[in-house]
Parts: sequence; C-alpha cells; structure tokens
Amino acid sequence: MTLKTRLTETFGLRCPIVLAPMDPASGGELAAAVSRAGGLGLIGVGYGDGATPEAEFAKAGGACVGFGFITWALANAPDLLDRALALKPAAVMLSFADPTPVAGKIRASGAPLLCQVHSLDHARRALDAGADVIVAQGSDAGGHGLTTRGTISLVPHVVDLVAARRPEVLVLAAGGIADGRGLAAALTLGADGALLGTRFWATREAKIPDAAKARALAATGDDTIRTTVYDIVRDRDWPAEYTGRLLRNRFVDEWHGRENELRAMDLGARKAAEEQSRGGDPVSNVTVGEAIGLIDDLPPAGELVERIAADAERRLRAASQALSAD
Amino acid sequence: MTLKTRLTETFGLRCPIVLAPMDPASGGELAAAVSRAGGLGLIGVGYGDGATPEAEFAKAGGACVGFGFITWALANAPDLLDRALALKPAAVMLSFADPTPVAGKIRASGAPLLCQVHSLDHARRALDAGADVIVAQGSDAGGHGLTTRGTISLVPHVVDLVAARRPEVLVLAAGGIADGRGLAAALTLGADGALLGTRFWATREAKIPDAAKARALAATGDDTIRTTVYDIVRDRDWPAEYTGRLLRNRFVDEWHGRENELRAMDLGARKAAEEQSRGGDPVSNVTVGEAIGLIDDLPPAGELVERIAADAERRLRAASQALSAD
Ligand SMILES: Cc1cc2nc3c(=O)[nH]c(=O)nc-3n(C[C@H](O)[C@H](O)[C@H](O)COP(=O)(O)O)c2cc1C
Ligand SMILES: Cc1cc2nc3c(=O)[nH]c(=O)nc-3n(C[C@H](O)[C@H](O)[C@H](O)COP(=O)(O)O)c2cc1C
Repeated sequence: MTLKTRLTETFGLRCPIVLAPMDPASGGELAAAVSRAGGLGLIGVGYGDGATPEAEFAKAGGACVGFGFITWALANAPDLLDRALALKPAAVMLSFADPTPVAGKIRASGAPLLCQVHSLDHARRALDAGADVIVAQGSDAGGHGLTTRGTISLVPHVVDLVAARRPEVLVLAAGGIADGRGLAAALTLGADGALLGTRFWATREAKIPDAAKARALAATGDDTIRTTVYDIVRDRDWPAEYTGRLLRNRFVDEWHGRENELRAMDLGARKAAEEQSRGGDPVSNVTVGEAIGLIDDLPPAGELVERIAADAERRLRAASQALSAD
Repeated sequence: MTLKTRLTETFGLRCPIVLAPMDPASGGELAAAVSRAGGLGLIGVGYGDGATPEAEFAKAGGACVGFGFITWALANAPDLLDRALALKPAAVMLSFADPTPVAGKIRASGAPLLCQVHSLDHARRALDAGADVIVAQGSDAGGHGLTTRGTISLVPHVVDLVAARRPEVLVLAAGGIADGRGLAAALTLGADGALLGTRFWATREAKIPDAAKARALAATGDDTIRTTVYDIVRDRDWPAEYTGRLLRNRFVDEWHGRENELRAMDLGARKAAEEQSRGGDPVSNVTVGEAIGLIDDLPPAGELVERIAADAERRLRAASQALSAD
C-alpha cells in the first residue's frame, strides 16, 4: 500500500514527503536518508557560505537528491547555482525573494523547479516564473517566511490559483506538519504532498548540535516566535518583510521589539549582547517551527519517512471508514 | 451518507460543523439556519451591549442553538450569563480569558461547555475548568485571538493533550476553515469537527451590512492582518495579548504600529482619526479571517452547511481511493 499522488508519480517517490532544504540541518546525509526511504531529499545550500554543494552532494552517495537555495543570497555567490546544476540534482528549490532572474537557468538545466511561496502574490509570481512545483509555506513554519498566511488556508488558496492558471503545476504544503495527521491534512487540503522542515531537523542525521536538539525536544509550539533578532546579530541581509520562527530564549525576550536599537550597534556589540543574554549557555539560536511540540524523539530520518507515510495512510483510511459506517 | 464523529453523536448533529458565536454576525436567525441544516448554531452575545440573548434566542424560533460569550466581558454584565442559561441553550461557549470563574455555573446548568483556546496553556486551563469541548483556534482565524499558534499544528497538539488528560473531551478545529477541504483536514488532524466563523459571516443570514459583505468577497487572505487599532477606537478593554484579525484598509495602514499614539488620544479624537482615514467610505471595520479568500458567494447558511459536509465527504473518499488504487 502506498500513498500515490501526482508528486509521487512525477518524481518516482514511494510517498509524498519532501525534506525542506534547511541550512545547516539538511546536509547530504539527511537528504540521502529521506530519498532512500522513498521521499525527496533536498540539501540546504543556505547563504552559500557554509558547506559546498559538491561536498554535501558527495555525502549523499549517489542517492537521488536536490538542492534548495535562498534566492536573494545567490546574488552574493554567483557561481553557486552553476556548480549545483553541474551536479545534475533531482530538483532545485528557490525560496525567499523573486525567483524570476534565475528560474530560466534552472529550467534550462532540466532540473524540476520548486518555488517556496508565502502569499498568493508570491504564488502568482512563481507560476509566471515557470515553477513546476509550488511550496505553499504558512507562518506556522520553522525558519524564515512571512507572517501573512497560516498553512491551513494558504494551501487550498494556492491549489485553487494553480488549478485556474497552470493546472499541471504541483502544490506542496509546508509549515506545521510533523506527523501522519499533518500529511493527511495536506492531502485533503488539495496538496500533492508535504514539505517538512522541523520534523527532519529532529533526526539523527540532521547537522545540528545534540544540545540544541535536546533543547528543542523539551519545547512546545507555544515556545516559538517569529523575530529578526538573530538575523541582526548574524548580519544577514534579509528583505524587511521576512522574519524567522525559532525558540524563544533570554536573548529573544530581551531584544525582540528593540530591533532598531540592536541594528544601530556595531556587529561586535551585537554579538556581545547575544552572548551576555545567553550567560554561558552553549545553546544559542534554535530554529524550529510550531510543529516542535509534536516531536519527542530523534529517529533516523528514513525510519521517520516510513512512519509518517504509514500513519497518514492509517488516518485517511480511518476517516473514510467513519464515512461508510452509515 | 453522513460524517459521523464523536461530536455528531454527542450533540445529535448530522454533520460536525459548528457556527462560531460571532458578534454581531451570529444572531438567532443564522444560528437557527445552521442548526436546522444539521450543524450546531451558536449565538454571539459578544460584549453584552448589543442585542439581548432573549431577543436573539427568540429569533431562532425553537431551533436547538447555544450561546457564546466573551469571558472577560461577563464581568461588566453580571446577569447576562444567568439570563442566557435560563433559556436552556444547547451549549455555551466561553472565549478569551480564564473560563474558571464561570465554568462551574454553566456546568451546573446542564449545558455542555465549549472553551475556545489559542495555546496549549489555554487548553490545560480549559481542561481543568471542566470543558466538555475544546475549540482550538489558530491565529489564521477571523476576530480575536493570539498570534501564538497556527491551526494546523495547534489542533493535533491539543488532541494529544486531551487524549492524555481527559480523553472524553471533544476537540474542534477553528481558524482558516471555509470549505470541505478544511473540514476534512480538521478531521484528519484528529479533531471531532470544526467551528467556522468567517465562512458563515459571508451568508445571507449574517447580521452584517451588505456593503461590508461585498467588500470582503473581493478580498483574499493576504489582505487580512492582526491588529488592535479598532479595539482602541471602540475603547474595548481587551487583555493585552489579544489582537483581532480583520481586513486591512487605510485606517489600519495608517495606525497599525502607532497604537500608543492612538491610545493616548481621547475617545472622540480616536473616532475622528478613524473617520478621517475612512474618508467617507461607508464600510468601516470588516472582521474576517484568512479564509475569506476561499469565499466567493453569500449563500443561505443552511445550504452552505450541506455543501461543506458533502464536499468534506467527497474529499475523504477521494483521498482513501487514492490509497487503495495500489
Ligand atoms: C532550521 C531551519 C532552517 C531552514 N532553512 C531554510 C533554508 O535555508 N532555505 C529554505 O528554503 N527554507 C528553509 N527553512 C524553511 C523550510 O523550507 C520550510 O518552509 C519549513 O521548515 C516548513 O515548516 P516546518 O518547519 O513546520 O516543517 C528552514 C527551516 C528550518 C526549521
Ligand atoms: C466577525 C467575527 C466576530 C467574532 N466574534 C467572536 C465573538 O464574539 N466571540 C467568540 O468567541 N469568537 C468570535 N470570533 C472568533 C470565532 O469564534 C472563531 O474562532 C473564528 O471565526 C474561526 O476562524 P475563521 O474565522 O477562520 O472561521 C469572531 C470571528 C469573526 C470572524
């Protein structure tokens, strides 16, 4: 028994589960584990100043994986995309900022293009840019995004928009999905599958320090917040409308709401402020979404893919049996 | 064929759909239409300074309807709850603030108690207060709530919490649900049904001016925002953590972010500021949630209940057929 959708058919998957290209959690090892278990693994290239695409791709050891880029960061690392495309990835995902300038090159390479969107306007732009898959990310998500839309209404909106404009395009739901219930909900909302970040962040293969993983497991979704304070400390040039969802902690509580003050400080002083709030705690920024409260283990990612797919099947079957009971 | 859940069994409904007790949209006529079509209609008593519970209950003409209260506002209208309970409502819902002080009286009356919650902490408090049904409302919702949680991860969290603490309690999903896809998603997330506000706001029976309804139909979920500017203009004493989701307009764009300035003005000046921004537009505050973009008609509410239930059934059946195709 498998969960068949347009996504599994198009990409040759055994289940409609995609690993979010998280920087730095989604390395080659994690991406390969997801792909080998029947999903689609995407390596997070992030800002392009961490591990190289070649090194992470090599770690995937021949598994069928793709790459995900932070679109606006590509301007600072012009050869990154070419190097990644040269590796013949299974797919390329663009997130955050207008995909139009680089979409043509990706499509010309033959790699399917996924575009992550956070609003209907973004979705229209991505359709115009030639996206093959739209990832509709709600503000429930971990990491960067907009506060504009939650997942549960954004996904059916985007599905309707796509059906009216370019019905051959696939839609993935992202944000707040961490188990079979969430995957089943994504499918009933009309999506062809789901893209999961936070859930895969909490796996054995994720490139995240153990202490941070342990901290996150103890948290619930009530403990996350969307803020820019860590972007300011790390001097990341995020477009003004984006915030990142992460765990609240003392630094966030002290500086969220005082962003202008923090921004006015020089970089050394910002880092010192963060260290002072942290007070020797080895765990700094823990980037996870609201779904963290649904998570209480750190399994191997492949086992997790199978668990989520089996649970989603069971949920859908149970819901349909409740129907025919009458 | 009907959608059977614990909610439909417990309340004797034909489908697991509950009308949110919206002030002022959910009057007796709307509540009765929802109940007669097989859902559960709740009259919104709101701040207790609008229509009386007796008058709205009379308009329901004997249909099996309940009431919903803004909990903190009950302190300003001490006899309101007693008067409502004397009418023998089908259910009583408490939203916004601690239900504990009044929960006992409601339960003693024999009316099932629904408590609307916006976080896990709220859910724990509501369970302790003896709620029979927890309504888990995500920030995608129209009207007041917290920004803490989106619907898609809050609902399964609350379901797990309830299962661990008081498994006999039912859970409803609220926020961003406007069609059969949303209802089907609520059920696969583990809820026993869904509570819908915005979708029923846009019906023939809703006590909302036609011009406001027309304005909302032209909007999408991207056009809503959570803000307190209208609460300040209307001098409503909302606890600080609550914001209301509504349509952006010139007044919101001009004053959102300048709340302290607005609050420092006397009431007459606040109202004048709102009128000036409005510039003669007869439509003022339009309170709807992100789901508004999924809505493009103003049907009779009863027809809508049947449409949503039938669509949810179709979606669940389709999802389960995709399963067994293999
Ligand atoms: C730790 C972390 C890092 C992320 N980094 C990126 C990134 O570099 N590029 C990207 O496109 N998305 C990134 N995201 C967002 C994901 O693509 C995705 O939208 C999100 O994780 C989905 O929500 P969920 O976390 O609730 O599953 C990141 C998310 C997390 C949790
Ligand atoms: C116009 C409007 C007024 C509302 N008024 C109330 C209210 O008086 N009391 C209450 O408990 N909830 C109120 N709500 C919130 C609803 O109970 C419910 O949580 C919400 O409508 C669900 O999200 P949805 O609008 O996306 O369906 C209101 C919602 C709207 C849209």
